[in-house]
Amino acid sequence: MTQAVTDLVRSRLTPFPRAHFNSAGDLNPVTLTALLDLADACVDVNRQGAKALDLMRGRTVVNLFFENSTRTSASFEIAAKRLGADVVSMNPRTSSVAKGETLIDTAMTLNAMKPDILVVRHSASGAAELLSQKVAAAVVNAGDGRHEHPTQALLDMLSLRRAFGDVGGLTVAICGDVAHSRVARSNVALLSMMGVRVRLIGPPTLVPGDADRWGCEVFHDMREGLKGCDVVMMLRLQLERMDGALAPSTREYYRFWGLDAEKLAWAAPGARVMHPGPMNRGVEIDSGVADDPAVSLIQDQVEMGVAVRMAVLASLSARQEAER
Amino acid sequence: MTQAVTDLVRSRLTPFPRAHFNSAGDLNPVTLTALLDLADACVDVNRQGAKALDLMRGRTVVNLFFENSTRTSASFEIAAKRLGADVVSMNPRTSSVAKGETLIDTAMTLNAMKPDILVVRHSASGAAELLSQKVAAAVVNAGDGRHEHPTQALLDMLSLRRAFGDVGGLTVAICGDVAHSRVARSNVALLSMMGVRVRLIGPPTLVPGDADRWGCEVFHDMREGLKGCDVVMMLRLQLERMDGALAPSTREYYRFWGLDAEKLAWAAPGARVMHPGPMNRGVEIDSGVADDPAVSLIQDQVEMGVAVRMAVLASLSARQEAER
Amino acid sequence: MTQAVTDLVRSRLTPFPRAHFNSAGDLNPVTLTALLDLADACVDVNRQGAKALDLMRGRTVVNLFFENSTRTSASFEIAAKRLGADVVSMNPRTSSVAKGETLIDTAMTLNAMKPDILVVRHSASGAAELLSQKVAAAVVNAGDGRHEHPTQALLDMLSLRRAFGDVGGLTVAICGDVAHSRVARSNVALLSMMGVRVRLIGPPTLVPGDADRWGCEVFHDMREGLKGCDVVMMLRLQLERMDGALAPSTREYYRFWGLDAEKLAWAAPGARVMHPGPMNRGVEIDSGVADDPAVSLIQDQVEMGVAVRMAVLASLSARQEAER
Repeated sequence: MTQAVTDLVRSRLTPFPRAHFNSAGDLNPVTLTALLDLADACVDVNRQGAKALDLMRGRTVVNLFFENSTRTSASFEIAAKRLGADVVSMNPRTSSVAKGETLIDTAMTLNAMKPDILVVRHSASGAAELLSQKVAAAVVNAGDGRHEHPTQALLDMLSLRRAFGDVGGLTVAICGDVAHSRVARSNVALLSMMGVRVRLIGPPTLVPGDADRWGCEVFHDMREGLKGCDVVMMLRLQLERMDGALAPSTREYYRFWGLDAEKLAWAAPGARVMHPGPMNRGVEIDSGVADDPAVSLIQDQVEMGVAVRMAVLASLSARQEAER
Repeated sequence: MTQAVTDLVRSRLTPFPRAHFNSAGDLNPVTLTALLDLADACVDVNRQGAKALDLMRGRTVVNLFFENSTRTSASFEIAAKRLGADVVSMNPRTSSVAKGETLIDTAMTLNAMKPDILVVRHSASGAAELLSQKVAAAVVNAGDGRHEHPTQALLDMLSLRRAFGDVGGLTVAICGDVAHSRVARSNVALLSMMGVRVRLIGPPTLVPGDADRWGCEVFHDMREGLKGCDVVMMLRLQLERMDGALAPSTREYYRFWGLDAEKLAWAAPGARVMHPGPMNRGVEIDSGVADDPAVSLIQDQVEMGVAVRMAVLASLSARQEAER
Repeated sequence: MTQAVTDLVRSRLTPFPRAHFNSAGDLNPVTLTALLDLADACVDVNRQGAKALDLMRGRTVVNLFFENSTRTSASFEIAAKRLGADVVSMNPRTSSVAKGETLIDTAMTLNAMKPDILVVRHSASGAAELLSQKVAAAVVNAGDGRHEHPTQALLDMLSLRRAFGDVGGLTVAICGDVAHSRVARSNVALLSMMGVRVRLIGPPTLVPGDADRWGCEVFHDMREGLKGCDVVMMLRLQLERMDGALAPSTREYYRFWGLDAEKLAWAAPGARVMHPGPMNRGVEIDSGVADDPAVSLIQDQVEMGVAVRMAVLASLSARQEAER
């Protein structure tokens, strides 16, 4: 069984199409599909919990998280360890950055230590791109400011594919704080790429003015926007990225934009619910909806997170092997 | 030699009696003895410093410490690595919990990452039990509020057994801040189980009103309580769990309840001293006593910590293997 | 190729001359040269990124950093992992130290966990020496207060040797905040040992009054001090170790003591620039100088950091093997 599983992973492993993974735009429908097929095979490796294949034995992955994240950081760490890589985790917020070291100095430092892959999260949009120009390691963007979070979009896509089979023709509503969301940006790109119709729903203050240029329909009314949707993707209210004075009252926000069973009923029958986490329960989503296994894909999303990160790390590593 | 050591471990390895290890009450005299025998064999593996046996190769242990602890966290991490497991350490206090994620959300997140064992420390009593109902991984309670800290009681028992041989018939005084101590609760349960007479000594404000129902004698006078004791187990004064206004003056506390050579002389000749650490030197214990190898078991306790955690992790893992 | 590289490491591996590595004075010209030869071979192992040789398989290295440092901590961690060791990283500033545990208690705790090597950074001068008297593990000083930082001096020496071949006869200027710098102390010792002429340059407030007893020339004028120097080693302005009232204005500091192309021109033609990092750009060094590959050795220094730490860890481990 384990042998069959690892053989499947090996047979689906192809080099990542780019030297770095900065944005959803680094993929196209063909390479995205190949990556998701690989991730699908990785799901079973993860479920068996075994370090079944030593695809990255002797390779070093550095997790460089300037912003904290239990979820994403642990997900990359477990993914790398499942592949047999060594992982060094840094959280420079409590570290040399306090001494005034710049992003580039930290990166060049790490670069001189010869890691193979650098996973980076930073509060500044463009940080991952900047790093990828400065270091020899492959850079994976694990979230940069409001810009992108491409592995999140990948895991969302894998969750959708597993729930619906073919995603082409689905209508997905991305709801809430679109303006501050890198998750929204990466998802719009990836979903559109696969023929999904995407709607953006939220108050005018939280949907960017140029959102119609993203190729999405924009709604400022939840009922109207949800009508006929197959998937409702709730976003985290990013209070920490807002100016205090402009932040909405969470109680009022929940009344208009929080997803509960009543609002969900406006969507298509059998509609599924997603959330990138961590959730503000009772702010953007009701616990009854979030925890209902019949509608919620939230647990699947987290599990798919490990699988897609295994696929990304393994295929970046395969590319490096091919170029050695 | 190493071969003999690892053979001994293998020969003593049996599945843990429960799916999780939440409380001292999960054990009985037979299973406790088997676990201590296994831990005894693990002492030598740890001393040889070798990853001698790959009992947990490919398994993932997540250390989820909502409260910080160098000692316990490192002890579990080293124990897991000695067994060949991968370890992912989280300290969510500086992490997503700050973003408002609940204990259950964090746990379900980790659960979706398919760890085999989840070691949890949390400030809320009952947190480990709650988690064990929500996750597929085996949960080990590494301290939950004032409730329990069962691996601490295990290591104390192993230290006692190695110092005294048979522990049945010993008299152990647990002294100080009993009210706020999960260590006391777990120790009372485990010591009583093995036929040890347990006394609780402390000021009325720091010994729970219902402590006589624990099956222990209660003393509010140190001299009286120590009379004839074979072991004096000092507790840490948990100032961080007290309302500031109710916290005793540390100087006055030391005068009445701090263990020094003079007070120790009231115990039985040859009495041994224990402390779960970290010590408040000069508050609940005098350095002269703590550091005297003729009376102090404190160093042994820490060393036994790695051994009993190896035994717990290995036997939980053996149970999982058996059920696969 | 990899085989040749690892054979070279093995052929150059000799036991470390002392049980601990506390100070540059633990070495002499012969043992220093042997260590640098070993480190030279380790550079290639690091560059190949492979865990090519399992010299420390089953050994445990504990990184005990009471002061934060992305750079040094990561460097030791990667070095240990390249050698196949398990690494447990602690940062007790956010840990039990907050509970009032002393340095010695923390160390004895770790000691009882039987690590093979303890890498320690602490804000108190003498901390590493104190620990080495209390623990069974080999202690490596990764920086103790203003005292020493011997592996930094080693990596500086390796960088110099690779840039200049023979270092004997070179003139090196150590510039800036000498008073608060453990890097300066370790470097003066190691450079002098190899026949390098060392100058100390800085304002009277930042050069210790007894610095002439270090066997160095002291200059309080940058132009005069740099004249004819082959190497300009800038120091970090340790504002965090200064009394606020005594800290210089960074703008004024830069004007007089910050290294820019104009001041560098006073040194010998082809002079090279070093900095232990993290840099205060625009305070003690100009980015144009720091980032110019024709003059700056700063990137090499970081890379050599992993190599010399591999050499130190491997040779301490070899000594332990020999004594087993």
